[in-house]
Amino acid sequence: MLKFEIEARAERSAARVGRLTVNGRTVETPVFFPVGTQGTVKGVAQKELIAHGVQGMLCNLYHLYLRPGIDVVEAAGGLHRFINWDRLIITDSGGFQVYSLKSLRKIEPEGVHFVSHLDGSSHLFTPENVIKMQMRLGADIAMVLDECVEYPTTFDYARSSMNLTLEWAKRSAKWLGQGTAIFGIVQGATFPELRVECARRLTELAFDGYAIGGLAVGEAKDTMFEMVDVCTRELPPDKPRYLMGVGFGVDIAKAVACGVDIFDCVMPTRNARNGTLFTESGRLVIKNTQYSQDNRPIEEGCDCYTCRNFSRSYLRHLHISGELLSPMLNSIHNIRYYTRLMSRVRDAIRDGQFEEFVAELQAKQAEENDIV
Amino acid sequence: MLKFEIEARAERSAARVGRLTVNGRTVETPVFFPVGTQGTVKGVAQKELIAHGVQGMLCNLYHLYLRPGIDVVEAAGGLHRFINWDRLIITDSGGFQVYSLKSLRKIEPEGVHFVSHLDGSSHLFTPENVIKMQMRLGADIAMVLDECVEYPTTFDYARSSMNLTLEWAKRSAKWLGQGTAIFGIVQGATFPELRVECARRLTELAFDGYAIGGLAVGEAKDTMFEMVDVCTRELPPDKPRYLMGVGFGVDIAKAVACGVDIFDCVMPTRNARNGTLFTESGRLVIKNTQYSQDNRPIEEGCDCYTCRNFSRSYLRHLHISGELLSPMLNSIHNIRYYTRLMSRVRDAIRDGQFEEFVAELQAKQAEENDIV
Repeated sequence: MLKFEIEARAERSAARVGRLTVNGRTVETPVFFPVGTQGTVKGVAQKELIAHGVQGMLCNLYHLYLRPGIDVVEAAGGLHRFINWDRLIITDSGGFQVYSLKSLRKIEPEGVHFVSHLDGSSHLFTPENVIKMQMRLGADIAMVLDECVEYPTTFDYARSSMNLTLEWAKRSAKWLGQGTAIFGIVQGATFPELRVECARRLTELAFDGYAIGGLAVGEAKDTMFEMVDVCTRELPPDKPRYLMGVGFGVDIAKAVACGVDIFDCVMPTRNARNGTLFTESGRLVIKNTQYSQDNRPIEEGCDCYTCRNFSRSYLRHLHISGELLSPMLNSIHNIRYYTRLMSRVRDAIRDGQFEEFVAELQAKQAEENDIV
Repeated sequence: MLKFEIEARAERSAARVGRLTVNGRTVETPVFFPVGTQGTVKGVAQKELIAHGVQGMLCNLYHLYLRPGIDVVEAAGGLHRFINWDRLIITDSGGFQVYSLKSLRKIEPEGVHFVSHLDGSSHLFTPENVIKMQMRLGADIAMVLDECVEYPTTFDYARSSMNLTLEWAKRSAKWLGQGTAIFGIVQGATFPELRVECARRLTELAFDGYAIGGLAVGEAKDTMFEMVDVCTRELPPDKPRYLMGVGFGVDIAKAVACGVDIFDCVMPTRNARNGTLFTESGRLVIKNTQYSQDNRPIEEGCDCYTCRNFSRSYLRHLHISGELLSPMLNSIHNIRYYTRLMSRVRDAIRDGQFEEFVAELQAKQAEENDIV
């Protein structure tokens, strides 16, 4: 069902290159999954994702459960057929979305009661039903239900929440080995001892892979990396590791150095819609007047459809005019930026140059801040 | 500069198949041009237009003049390069847009004073400057400045307006033979004698082609076709004829029967955004509950990207979820519906079956009303 082969390792960090295969669908890791919450990566057709090197998509149980509903997707033959995407699909359990609802949800040992953001109807997610629903969707990788705690939080709250997450994880582990890979999620807020304990106890449950959750929610970057490092040191080295929701290029590279294999984030598409474009030499804010007669592509040498065909001047015009083609072309470029970044990450690890690569990327990030 | 060869004619109507070449860019007529007002067909990337058989695009001087401005487009090497579109481009002079501004414009013999809908700035379009600006844009076919009169109107107003349009046409004709094809526009509201007079007097000016304007503005369909018929009978048979803004399938076919060669309309893309899809057996309103678990494509046998890859169920989900992919996929299908319709129109004329084709299309339109 899930096979993970490590093909190369960095010498001076925990970074590794691997091949992850689930249900016959293979991705090269480290890998970045764009977010297709509702079964579509916003503004990018499936064939463009493939043409631009996307290996997998992160979809969301919470959203798909509410709309169009699990029955509809199941009747279509599962999510891969419903959205016409034959590459890897991870579904998030909805824990994070429910956590974001705040006043609309109530967490109990049984599960989480919540009210739909769409129509106010009442629902219950349990560790059991979220796994079953993700299996009905036909996800390749399902995520357990967890509780994401707010930042900052107290040690006591974080510990009791972690225990709940672990209790839920145990109830989820019953479905291991039944066709859908299941990943446990390490919680523990910003408390290293809780992260260690959570990682160890999850490891005992022998999940197919492990995610690190509850980060990038407001804590300092150093704290975030400390937590990532603490988790990856405890997690089994032969299983894939997934850092949820972290998508800034340099952060990805630094997390790879800690031994993370899988990433997802809305950054490429959300920024594209806002007119912020990623390039090797920094971010480019397309609405800026300086691009009004700039006939160069977003990024010289970029092989994406947008850069091969359209100028900054045209892209600025589309953005300012509010044309649909603006998020479409911008998203294609940003998606390609991410797939190329990950490809370079893998090459750098294979070539024994990964630490230099990370240092170079960080140096460029400094520039980047100026360009914005 | 402009070459128009008629290759086949229907026996029982004025319909004809032709090849129109302007500046080395050829289209087969009758042809439908999707509208790319601001230099983009809403929601459809240029390569998808090409992949789905689009032969040309109608852009708009009024909009491009206001934003990004003629200078920007000129600096990019002209509109074809700016928008990366090497097929035919017709630019509308903006007469219709200015007419739509109503309270924001004032028509005088010199030209039309108007206030920008974007920032309230004041502008003047004259017969001379609109042609010069369209030439600077690098349009293949430029339209003269005209006055579109409201419907209904009096004979006296329509006659004086027509005389102004003719006076303006005369001033525009000075630029004939200078690299950009220029089309005159027949006005005259719903008065056959004015239409005849306008067509005759425009013909004396020897434009490269002739448009029929001021129709589909609220008059009855029968009146519209009477006017089209009156105009095409007067216009020189060896020049291309363009019926502006008429885009309903059956209306196109009936106008082709009157001898019209070129069409444009926002219908395919605007309807796509509203979730209305065109099929051979009628219109399909994708939000309808009946499609929630319908795993068929929009139209069986359609070769568009959308129909080859996605179900009605998925398209309904995208529409209801407000996803960008919804207008994207819907527009591709509707555009393909139009290019296929025009291809069938041409085949039917060549095969001597055009009148049967029109009758069949009308019969389907009756069905279509039921499906909506």
